Amino acid sequence: MPARGDHDARRRDVSAAVWRVLADRGFGGLTLRAVAAEMGASTGLLTHYFPNKKALVSYALDVADERTSGRAVRTTHEPGLAALRAALLDVLPLTPEAAVMNRVWVGSWDGSLADPELREREMRRYRGWRARLRVHVAAAVERGELPATSGADDVDDVTAAAAAFAHGLVVHALFDPDRYPPERQVRMLDAWLAALAP
Amino acid sequence: MPARGDHDARRRDVSAAVWRVLADRGFGGLTLRAVAAEMGASTGLLTHYFPNKKALVSYALDVADERTSGRAVRTTHEPGLAALRAALLDVLPLTPEAAVMNRVWVGSWDGSLADPELREREMRRYRGWRARLRVHVAAAVERGELPATSGADDVDDVTAAAAAFAHGLVVHALFDPDRYPPERQVRMLDAWLAALAP
Repeated sequence: MPARGDHDARRRDVSAAVWRVLADRGFGGLTLRAVAAEMGASTGLLTHYFPNKKALVSYALDVADERTSGRAVRTTHEPGLAALRAALLDVLPLTPEAAVMNRVWVGSWDGSLADPELREREMRRYRGWRARLRVHVAAAVERGELPATSGADDVDDVTAAAAAFAHGLVVHALFDPDRYPPERQVRMLDAWLAALAP
Repeated sequence: MPARGDHDARRRDVSAAVWRVLADRGFGGLTLRAVAAEMGASTGLLTHYFPNKKALVSYALDVADERTSGRAVRTTHEPGLAALRAALLDVLPLTPEAAVMNRVWVGSWDGSLADPELREREMRRYRGWRARLRVHVAAAVERGELPATSGADDVDDVTAAAAAFAHGLVVHALFDPDRYPPERQVRMLDAWLAALAP
């Protein structure tokens, strides 16, 4: 059994190789063989870690989660609309790194929709994200930056609309970066936020 | 060589089998073996049609295109905002059939992002869709239903935002149908359109 340090180093190597495969080829290209080739290791070694395809996919989602939660995010001291804007900007593919991150997540959807367990995992992830965004929407209403509406449902709907808009923009920008340069993505987000204000 | 009628019947069988595999398992589950099993045919027979995985994926995209363009769509005699609304409703997963259609398209993105040719194909498809939506946005401005703006750029941005919102809503509704029942999707779309109006 390898020492702990070896184990951690190996895990980092595997994670980095998985990420490179996902960034280049997506989940459709994620195979033990591809990861082994990235590491210069044998497929046999990886079989030890990943007894089946689903184990490899679950691990890849863990890697994506870690990268996503470990990424640099915008900090703002303003609550409400400014915080909502910052949180949505954090999601958009405004940098090459953010584009890779998004490409991986968008690529994960096919497999997640096909597997009840992975689908539930993704559902919970997005519920968690919307719950974090909702805090900003509620604060914006509180501060009078967004119209006071008929109740909690409307705050939920505005939050869900913000999340949908951001994710759809991610998809279109990934397919058509020439038509969706970063400045246009930001302009579109700002126009939408402006349309919400009273 | 089979007679023309046989050929067409066989093509319909293959298309139906490909569609069932996509609906159940997504592009990640699309293999010659899976399609053959759906047809009760031999994998060898299908190798004749699809020399490699990419040929099968391209064919699957053709099938999805055919199904999408052949589906029943809402007709409206009102141009402008009403036509935009109808076109966006046509995209949302408001029925089981529309949910399957969307599940297939969302599932196609992983493979399309990984292949330059497929990526370009998808890019053009979405450009075409946005061009069709743009006609409605421009008509809505003309009719005074949307504010007259600073020019063509704004019409493009409003169109792109509507397309992004609809596609993001598709993704969230696919993962979380309990939280996104059809009536909520429609309510969110109507709120979106209402926020655009002067």
